[in-house]
Amino acid sequence: MSREVKLIEAITANLPQREDTVVGAGDDCAVVESDASKHMLLKTDAVVEGIHFESSHPAEKVGHKALARALSDIAAMGGTPHSAVVTLGLPKSFDQQWVLDFYQGLNALATRFQVAVVGGETVCSPGAIVCSVALTGTVAPGKAILRSTARVRDGLFVTGDLGGSIAGKHLEFTPRIKEAQWLAEHFDIHAMIDLSDGLAGDLQRICSASGVGAEVWSDYLPISRAARLRAKDGDTAKPSVAAAMTDGEDFELLLCLDPSEAVRLKDAWRETFPETTITCIGKIIEQPDVILKDQQGSRPIQWHGYDHFQ
Amino acid sequence: MSREVKLIEAITANLPQREDTVVGAGDDCAVVESDASKHMLLKTDAVVEGIHFESSHPAEKVGHKALARALSDIAAMGGTPHSAVVTLGLPKSFDQQWVLDFYQGLNALATRFQVAVVGGETVCSPGAIVCSVALTGTVAPGKAILRSTARVRDGLFVTGDLGGSIAGKHLEFTPRIKEAQWLAEHFDIHAMIDLSDGLAGDLQRICSASGVGAEVWSDYLPISRAARLRAKDGDTAKPSVAAAMTDGEDFELLLCLDPSEAVRLKDAWRETFPETTITCIGKIIEQPDVILKDQQGSRPIQWHGYDHFQ
Repeated sequence: MSREVKLIEAITANLPQREDTVVGAGDDCAVVESDASKHMLLKTDAVVEGIHFESSHPAEKVGHKALARALSDIAAMGGTPHSAVVTLGLPKSFDQQWVLDFYQGLNALATRFQVAVVGGETVCSPGAIVCSVALTGTVAPGKAILRSTARVRDGLFVTGDLGGSIAGKHLEFTPRIKEAQWLAEHFDIHAMIDLSDGLAGDLQRICSASGVGAEVWSDYLPISRAARLRAKDGDTAKPSVAAAMTDGEDFELLLCLDPSEAVRLKDAWRETFPETTITCIGKIIEQPDVILKDQQGSRPIQWHGYDHFQ
Repeated sequence: MSREVKLIEAITANLPQREDTVVGAGDDCAVVESDASKHMLLKTDAVVEGIHFESSHPAEKVGHKALARALSDIAAMGGTPHSAVVTLGLPKSFDQQWVLDFYQGLNALATRFQVAVVGGETVCSPGAIVCSVALTGTVAPGKAILRSTARVRDGLFVTGDLGGSIAGKHLEFTPRIKEAQWLAEHFDIHAMIDLSDGLAGDLQRICSASGVGAEVWSDYLPISRAARLRAKDGDTAKPSVAAAMTDGEDFELLLCLDPSEAVRLKDAWRETFPETTITCIGKIIEQPDVILKDQQGSRPIQWHGYDHFQ
């Protein structure tokens, strides 16, 4: 277990709760009772220069990404985003135009998803630019889609293509808000997560939370063009299946659904989102491991989690 | 005008809003419509190592301060705090015990004010420890106390003592949640703000937002013991009136109330909060300046705002 994972376990073991806390730390978003007709979702997510973006990246795209990551978490709960506050840590010698461009990208995405940006602050951050976005959302009571409710025999589905996000997608992706809302409306989705740390790791999170395991069928993985190209690249070559399993920041949805619904899902999805694929990549099993199955056989995936501090 | 103030003006001029945004950026908290019985408050506030705390300070106190600052903003709206999410930026070589102690301080204060800590994340922050707390709260519709509704002839009141917070109070203060709720319940408070950047600056914020000015009576300022002691200190000597006017992080409440209510306020306050003073320190005037009045006469206060980036 990584040092970061251990730390987070120690922190989350003792957090103060309230009676109206429906879901606390540990899912894509927190869920808090609001009134009879809706619950509130709450999420915070940060991007750091040198880790989530580089100083050479256009500031608009960094602003887009900062909000898009939090939106992706609201999507993973089947929720509707609502209001955001933004904390921006800047070095003393910050470039004013960079900040305005950052906000232009963030605001454009907010407008597209009817998110109000209702506050924030700028502080001095000596080492690197840091941006933390806190986002609220809403979901009907009892309708938030959790990580902890996958069932044995569920089909495992993923939207879009996997791997190679670092080639550009991570700065430009559209969070799957519409797709997730449509899924929540038309299907009884048992569990869902957005892929931020790579399929292997995020699937492990669903399995751990649900007390189940999963089998992933290597041949069926929807591998992105970027991952295929990078697999041929001399210096940074990574087999494309490995990229699809472990590359971070895909920001696609991974969901679990009763197998009897698989055909209806594929059919209705194709009608509704003709430009995006949805792929059945495996199934939920009882044995509590994540297993990769290919032509050569089956092997458990060892996953240690991405550690920000290594 | 400082570079930071200019930047914030440029940012806040273009933020996306929604129809149910009651108060956007620019007050102590945002106010968002929730349902018929309550509105939601939303605030984010960050502390940075080397600015808001030092590495030599006990981590519990830093955690306490990180949440207390945001609670103070909920207080300034007359609201009730509800749920928090925490972003903690740590250097690669972070000390796990420091983080656990930080959370112990934060959690203890959260428990005291029935705040649930429902999520958060740790990220790598190369230069300094940064902690951003996003906090929700509730307030009855139409009952949020704003900065923008001070009226000419209002009396200007301040809780507690001013100045010298850096001597220790800034790490230990109790946010004035109970006092603010009591004020909101028993009086028609016209405007309120929590003192984070110093009386002169924060009073200027009320005046600018309300389109009024204010007169502060130097002789009546409740100067803290710490500010008086520091005024006698050779190296860091600052006249105690100047300290009360400009020292940051008092986290007291500054409020505007119809002058006819002044005696009832003082009387009822003394019965309810015998250990804390409330002091009438001046009045709201039409002329749009902040004026300091003392035995020598009147003079406008020039205030340029605290600039994090200088």
